[in-house]
Amino acid sequence: MLPSLQLDARSETPLYRQLYEQLRSLIQSGLIQRGERLPATRELAGWLGLNRATVSAAYELLESDGLIKGHVGRGSFVEGGQTPLSRIAWQELAEAPAAGLPAPALGSEGISFASSRPDEALFPLSEFRACCEEVISADGLSTILQLGSPAGHAPLRQYLLGEAHVDGNARAGDDVVITSGCQQALDLLARVLIRPGDPVVVEDPVYPGLRDLFTAAGARLMGAPVGPQGPELHVLERLLEAEHPRLLVVSPNFQNPTGATMPLEARERLLRLAYSAGVLVVENDIYGALRYEGEPLASLKHLDPAGEVIFLGSFSKAAFPGLRVGWVIGPPALMARLKEAKQRSDLHTDQLSQAVFFRFAESGRLAAHLDRVRVEGARRLAAVLAACREHLPEGSRWTQPEGGMNVWVRLPEPLDAGELLPRAERAGVNYLPGKYFAVGRAEPGALRLSFAGLPPERIREGVAILGEIFKNELGRVRAARLAEPARALV
Amino acid sequence: MLPSLQLDARSETPLYRQLYEQLRSLIQSGLIQRGERLPATRELAGWLGLNRATVSAAYELLESDGLIKGHVGRGSFVEGGQTPLSRIAWQELAEAPAAGLPAPALGSEGISFASSRPDEALFPLSEFRACCEEVISADGLSTILQLGSPAGHAPLRQYLLGEAHVDGNARAGDDVVITSGCQQALDLLARVLIRPGDPVVVEDPVYPGLRDLFTAAGARLMGAPVGPQGPELHVLERLLEAEHPRLLVVSPNFQNPTGATMPLEARERLLRLAYSAGVLVVENDIYGALRYEGEPLASLKHLDPAGEVIFLGSFSKAAFPGLRVGWVIGPPALMARLKEAKQRSDLHTDQLSQAVFFRFAESGRLAAHLDRVRVEGARRLAAVLAACREHLPEGSRWTQPEGGMNVWVRLPEPLDAGELLPRAERAGVNYLPGKYFAVGRAEPGALRLSFAGLPPERIREGVAILGEIFKNELGRVRAARLAEPARALV
Repeated sequence: MLPSLQLDARSETPLYRQLYEQLRSLIQSGLIQRGERLPATRELAGWLGLNRATVSAAYELLESDGLIKGHVGRGSFVEGGQTPLSRIAWQELAEAPAAGLPAPALGSEGISFASSRPDEALFPLSEFRACCEEVISADGLSTILQLGSPAGHAPLRQYLLGEAHVDGNARAGDDVVITSGCQQALDLLARVLIRPGDPVVVEDPVYPGLRDLFTAAGARLMGAPVGPQGPELHVLERLLEAEHPRLLVVSPNFQNPTGATMPLEARERLLRLAYSAGVLVVENDIYGALRYEGEPLASLKHLDPAGEVIFLGSFSKAAFPGLRVGWVIGPPALMARLKEAKQRSDLHTDQLSQAVFFRFAESGRLAAHLDRVRVEGARRLAAVLAACREHLPEGSRWTQPEGGMNVWVRLPEPLDAGELLPRAERAGVNYLPGKYFAVGRAEPGALRLSFAGLPPERIREGVAILGEIFKNELGRVRAARLAEPARALV
Repeated sequence: MLPSLQLDARSETPLYRQLYEQLRSLIQSGLIQRGERLPATRELAGWLGLNRATVSAAYELLESDGLIKGHVGRGSFVEGGQTPLSRIAWQELAEAPAAGLPAPALGSEGISFASSRPDEALFPLSEFRACCEEVISADGLSTILQLGSPAGHAPLRQYLLGEAHVDGNARAGDDVVITSGCQQALDLLARVLIRPGDPVVVEDPVYPGLRDLFTAAGARLMGAPVGPQGPELHVLERLLEAEHPRLLVVSPNFQNPTGATMPLEARERLLRLAYSAGVLVVENDIYGALRYEGEPLASLKHLDPAGEVIFLGSFSKAAFPGLRVGWVIGPPALMARLKEAKQRSDLHTDQLSQAVFFRFAESGRLAAHLDRVRVEGARRLAAVLAACREHLPEGSRWTQPEGGMNVWVRLPEPLDAGELLPRAERAGVNYLPGKYFAVGRAEPGALRLSFAGLPPERIREGVAILGEIFKNELGRVRAARLAEPARALV
């Protein structure tokens, strides 16, 4: 009747207590059910080779817990334990999951255009090792390993603020907060600035991690459609006037996923619109350093007469995104609130990585690495654009980025990039369909090609495979249309 | 009239545009004010050595922006720019700040009992360096530096889950999520489980970082008073029955700030209460490994028949809190939601530190270090308890922890630990007064002595100084009371 009981006479826990605990667990887990009769104490003592008093003591504890009840002449019956094993409705307690990214279904031989991240084959490992060695052999190591400041590692903060002043990305009086990557910078801004129901304008299509975090924060997200020159400003203007959003988040350089860059005039006009509407502008510039051709353009932060743009940067697109270090630069009143939110979130960003990145940047190794990354990025960008020209079916359109990691492709109707993905994956190539980036408008034919992680020959190979699949499908669909019988005229 | 205009003929930006931009900036920043007359185009052209058409083009742009208006025969007058420089009410936009911790006001010579963190003098630096060397010279370095999984570095996750199974801190089917320290584990739980207004029960007094994050998440916090044996269970029972809280967060081992540890019976009773109330239990065990005397007690997770307790751990109290690595173990449905929240928060925890901690733990260096920390911790605990006996004024009470980092002192009335702090700081010693830990009940006489960061002789010296101050104040107050004139009898 009783499932296996295992008592250990050598344990420090007395036998009566071991027995009590095991019986209690069996009752509470439902393995002994309500209404069942327990063996008589004498009987159980015999089975287990125990003194009868030991069993009685265990039963008394169970009775005092309300788990069993003794009935004179009939024995002890299980009273409790009728509740199911899990009294917590886990699925209900936890929120519904956000729409996640599709799991990459490729083997190691596949060609993945799915991730907007740097190529680990280009990681400057010997420079990284040298920076690590400097940090771990330096006198200040204990300080780095001790609890630090929510605002970040002081030498890195000073370095970043100094660089930002040189580049026009900080104003006098601005402060900087180091975050665990740019994702956390956006998250902290949402925490400090957004209340449920607050309208927030983002680009459409947009990086899903941005969309999902603001949605989870309760923001009412509105998308400004992104054209070749960034957000379409006439739509943005209407949105700002009609909705009075609290925040406007934009990536003027090499936007993810479109690769679009705002020209100088568009930046100025956007600032004027934002200024009139009294909306806070967040400038996400994580791709800014990855310009492969053309001249750098002044940031919104630089152009903003009031200097109130909130500027976000990160090391993650240059190298080592597995080390989570990003930053926010902005007016001190806001930065003070971000520091508090940062402290509540995770006390501060990991200091080993901050110290390593500080050495990497301050020593000039970052700049030298960026030079190499830009040379290689230009080759990859040229390869993806040429491959699109050569292989994509007629009627396809794609953006012409001057940097960054992404090209946005629009296939001719009626192709659906989401429907075609499984076919592409079977052929060893993947990408992210447009729907993963959508805010308010569906573009079934759109897809993102993240090209920066692949060498040119793999890019050509991958786009050729995709082009073949897309052309085949287009041919099939058109043949099917032609083959449709003409409608009867009645 | 005009502040310095600086035009650069060699710039790629045309001169008319440079002029336009600078004038616009001056107007928008208020340096040229509404109603001011701009110089005539001919006049300004002459001053700046420009063609008059260049100035006219700039003025036309300003006019099209609505910033100036030309009046025939009178010149151009500033129209815009009347809004104040900052159109954003920063202080209103950002939330009111949470009650922060007092800034430590001590110099490097001071004795600080204010921070519950490990002593950096005990950090095993050579072991740390060896772990770093192993990580940066290993083959898998690129993978560690590349973007990773929201759930954490796979080898560390497997290690932690394996250890937790051995220790009884994980159940079959449980999953683990690596977080940026225990603070983020609590924060992610608040995000996934708490909606504004949800009741949450915590210990009172409690670690302020826990209180503040749940408050910021909108929880309705209720405190279960902590006695020598942890939360007072009769109060907890009433709270659970009356308020139906969603979460109960407890630290059964060496609670911060009191140092209290729940005996086995109290743990079992707490679980029964939680079970009946259907409340989720979060067990924060970050001090659990720091037991200096007595036998380890089974965790709530271990004792829980349903195995639904959510278990939190961290490396931060053993060593290297500047590296932010903690973890949560719990039922898989909840862990799936935590991974999503983690991804929205910061993608994943820094992988360099995860890899280093994995080496540190898996190689046995962590266990060896904990042995040393416990020996030293025992000396420091003995020193602080002896110093309290020797130096604190009569009528003082303090807890008798068997581990951890904190002793909770209650001074005799009418002493106020907050009022006395500045005096202590002037004498070179600080601590945190009880009010920083309060949830619902004020204990003006209470203070936390965090002893783990100081060698025994500094502990004795510091407590002696505090005792002197407290005794003096008590003498002064009593003398003043005695000196009060007797009331007139009327």
